[in-house]
Amino acid sequence: MPISRIAVGRPEEATHPEALKAALAEFISTLIFVFAGQGSGMAFSKLTGGGPTTPAGLVVASLAHGLGLFVAVAVGANISGGHVNPAVTFGAFVGGNITLLRGILYWIAQLLGSTVACLLLRFATGGLSTGVFGLSSGVNVWNAFVFEIVMTFGLVYTVYATALDPKKGSLGTIAPIAIGFIVGANILAGGAFDGASMNPAVSFGPALVSWSWTHHWVYWAGPLIGGGLAGLIYEFVFISHSHEQLPSADY
Amino acid sequence: MPISRIAVGRPEEATHPEALKAALAEFISTLIFVFAGQGSGMAFSKLTGGGPTTPAGLVVASLAHGLGLFVAVAVGANISGGHVNPAVTFGAFVGGNITLLRGILYWIAQLLGSTVACLLLRFATGGLSTGVFGLSSGVNVWNAFVFEIVMTFGLVYTVYATALDPKKGSLGTIAPIAIGFIVGANILAGGAFDGASMNPAVSFGPALVSWSWTHHWVYWAGPLIGGGLAGLIYEFVFISHSHEQLPSADY
Amino acid sequence: MPISRIAVGRPEEATHPEALKAALAEFISTLIFVFAGQGSGMAFSKLTGGGPTTPAGLVVASLAHGLGLFVAVAVGANISGGHVNPAVTFGAFVGGNITLLRGILYWIAQLLGSTVACLLLRFATGGLSTGVFGLSSGVNVWNAFVFEIVMTFGLVYTVYATALDPKKGSLGTIAPIAIGFIVGANILAGGAFDGASMNPAVSFGPALVSWSWTHHWVYWAGPLIGGGLAGLIYEFVFISHSHEQLPSADY
Amino acid sequence: MPISRIAVGRPEEATHPEALKAALAEFISTLIFVFAGQGSGMAFSKLTGGGPTTPAGLVVASLAHGLGLFVAVAVGANISGGHVNPAVTFGAFVGGNITLLRGILYWIAQLLGSTVACLLLRFATGGLSTGVFGLSSGVNVWNAFVFEIVMTFGLVYTVYATALDPKKGSLGTIAPIAIGFIVGANILAGGAFDGASMNPAVSFGPALVSWSWTHHWVYWAGPLIGGGLAGLIYEFVFISHSHEQLPSADY
Repeated sequence: MPISRIAVGRPEEATHPEALKAALAEFISTLIFVFAGQGSGMAFSKLTGGGPTTPAGLVVASLAHGLGLFVAVAVGANISGGHVNPAVTFGAFVGGNITLLRGILYWIAQLLGSTVACLLLRFATGGLSTGVFGLSSGVNVWNAFVFEIVMTFGLVYTVYATALDPKKGSLGTIAPIAIGFIVGANILAGGAFDGASMNPAVSFGPALVSWSWTHHWVYWAGPLIGGGLAGLIYEFVFISHSHEQLPSADY
Repeated sequence: MPISRIAVGRPEEATHPEALKAALAEFISTLIFVFAGQGSGMAFSKLTGGGPTTPAGLVVASLAHGLGLFVAVAVGANISGGHVNPAVTFGAFVGGNITLLRGILYWIAQLLGSTVACLLLRFATGGLSTGVFGLSSGVNVWNAFVFEIVMTFGLVYTVYATALDPKKGSLGTIAPIAIGFIVGANILAGGAFDGASMNPAVSFGPALVSWSWTHHWVYWAGPLIGGGLAGLIYEFVFISHSHEQLPSADY
Repeated sequence: MPISRIAVGRPEEATHPEALKAALAEFISTLIFVFAGQGSGMAFSKLTGGGPTTPAGLVVASLAHGLGLFVAVAVGANISGGHVNPAVTFGAFVGGNITLLRGILYWIAQLLGSTVACLLLRFATGGLSTGVFGLSSGVNVWNAFVFEIVMTFGLVYTVYATALDPKKGSLGTIAPIAIGFIVGANILAGGAFDGASMNPAVSFGPALVSWSWTHHWVYWAGPLIGGGLAGLIYEFVFISHSHEQLPSADY
Repeated sequence: MPISRIAVGRPEEATHPEALKAALAEFISTLIFVFAGQGSGMAFSKLTGGGPTTPAGLVVASLAHGLGLFVAVAVGANISGGHVNPAVTFGAFVGGNITLLRGILYWIAQLLGSTVACLLLRFATGGLSTGVFGLSSGVNVWNAFVFEIVMTFGLVYTVYATALDPKKGSLGTIAPIAIGFIVGANILAGGAFDGASMNPAVSFGPALVSWSWTHHWVYWAGPLIGGGLAGLIYEFVFISHSHEQLPSADY
């Protein structure tokens, strides 16, 4: 049961020990994910002397984020649901799968986890700068906006279909792999255009540590709109409606 | 139960709410898949200034399509069966696993999903052209025809063995991974020769948006023949015959 | 139940319909695997104008063989056990998991599947030569011999631990992935030295079609010795002994 | 049940046949893992004439170690728990999941497996040197220390969440994949800075065979501290505490 619908939707107080443990799990999962993902960008930069992205660099970014997110979701799944992403938490919230208070707690833990990962990387790399998300030449902010909306829609739709849908069945076993790999696939497309964040925490940590906020809003607005849209559509078309038509539990 | 044999084979009317929901799931899955797959080709083109395919480019295409298709099949599995491909729908039809009406509905949804993905990519990339499938130098249309037949045979055979076979057992859990990864593997072989489509929807969207139809028929005829052949052989050799000989359910 | 210990070990006649169906499944699985694996080598050769292997080329070979073998094992698992490799069949034979007659039938099907894949590739690529396994400069035949023994030992040990061991439990679900990926991992090591075959069928098809038999014996002797050793050790140390000590079925 | 909490924690004597069999399994798993991982580094060195690490080289190292460790953990899971790493054994020890005697036996088997893999590689490659772990330019020993602590923390946290946690549920099925892939992801970050060992056995074999011990201590101290910390935090925050609050077995 990678992301438990019932546990996440239960109205816990934000100060309840279980809620704090879930927040700690989000903090650790996000730290592990951002350390590998952001670290791979800094490694590429070191190996190429700060050269431009190449196809091999796209593969490095895709694998580091895809594999890292798979693991981050898996290790958090039974404790916090393994969101690791404010857009996933928001998508779960609009579909009624997490309470507002717990959602805010998750956001704080995710942003903190990303920031600590970036600070650790800055020290461990001997002071290299973190890579800030931004637009490639020829890409304007509305292009990036659409990229982030569509890609995060795919990510949160995947979270719903494989982890939150009560009819998910054996898909639940491979949910963390699917969630990690849709991000890995999308980076191979969007990475060359806007960095392919799909995750405000992933953009926030490096922006804070490097204090660079150009176009930062698009890495919040895009993922939240795409993730919210996916949550609404999946919950109200594929979960709620099918409940009315198909009361049988073993459909 | 990633691709439900019974649900897909049930004679539903095309206007039944469940059939329309399945078509919507095919539309969304195909959109997610083509956005990552086609987008990765446009990213490679941007990073290399439109340079020729390299081994690293093959890896990019293979991962984007392999990971993207895995997820697209997984997220559609419990709603539509996760075909995401007119050749898979045709292969399921010739083996008696989907009705004609529902099959037509799926085809429309798949072609529409691919087209919308290409339009979104054209906008999000700031107007870059989509990559149209075509033949490399030294490859004629009959070479490509054989490539598409053999590769799509492998794909649809995989769909049958892991998702439609009633004896699939625990293979069903990893069916979406196997279906995605046979496409990823085949792209590493056929990608350098004919683009390795194995999927008429994947070729149709870019051809329509770029209005370029040279040799387009081969990307329909090859996959439909290969997929149909796999459906016939698997259904009548490995499913039907074994039913006669092995009535025991737990073989 | 990816590779059924009981079904494979049952003393069937080689002409029994089920045995012939298993041989057909081995033929198709090997064809699918060799088409992707050998095809990826021909694609690399085409893209680089026959240039020497590069790290990116190693990744292409590793992914094509790793993903392709995963799928080939998965689609054959419930019909033939998904051997796809004479060394795996031999390793299963020495541990008493397949009869001699059925083993010979499998070998014929595997060698035929590889040969047909190479003939199809030769046509589909417009007549390119298949890549024959051979030794890199600085590598002698005894070096390659050790490489093939150690790598095939790892492969057949993986087959035993994840698919043939009665205590495998939920490992059986991911057995095809593990079997494919140990080959993918080993190619990244041995590929640069002796081509990393680990499978006499994989070497036989290209050698026959290109009629090139230099050092061919090492690609039979190495895998058969390594695979046989793994079968003996796993069966008699980890399966048989633990039976004596641990009669409980649900250990 | 990939890593059995009960079996590993049972107070066996180190000379008990089952303990010796577990040690043999650790020896073989570590040999398989190091042969692929270390071998891939030697292959990269051969293909590039000893050139510096490139992004493609990072991908080769990440895939070889990620896929190889996945398989090594899987094939050992039901016999020894599939540690393949003194830091994992130490992390299991501090959380009370393995006895001291059995832990020492595992360490010996792991160090021996790594050493034999390096000796086999030295012969099979025609006498090439093994690659010793060391610091890139601009990286001091404390940077590497932090890298190893953080990355091994992530690895052992993953082992606990997916394999040792009694509440792991269906996560156990994909535990070996998660454990292998967090190492693959971390290599893409740390590989360019300190080699990204996360495993004293992985560093010990090449250091012994090449007799090169510069900064070797950091590849023991970092992983043991990071792994021990993960074991303490996971066991006492997420396992023990939740036991007190949630006595129900099917949470």
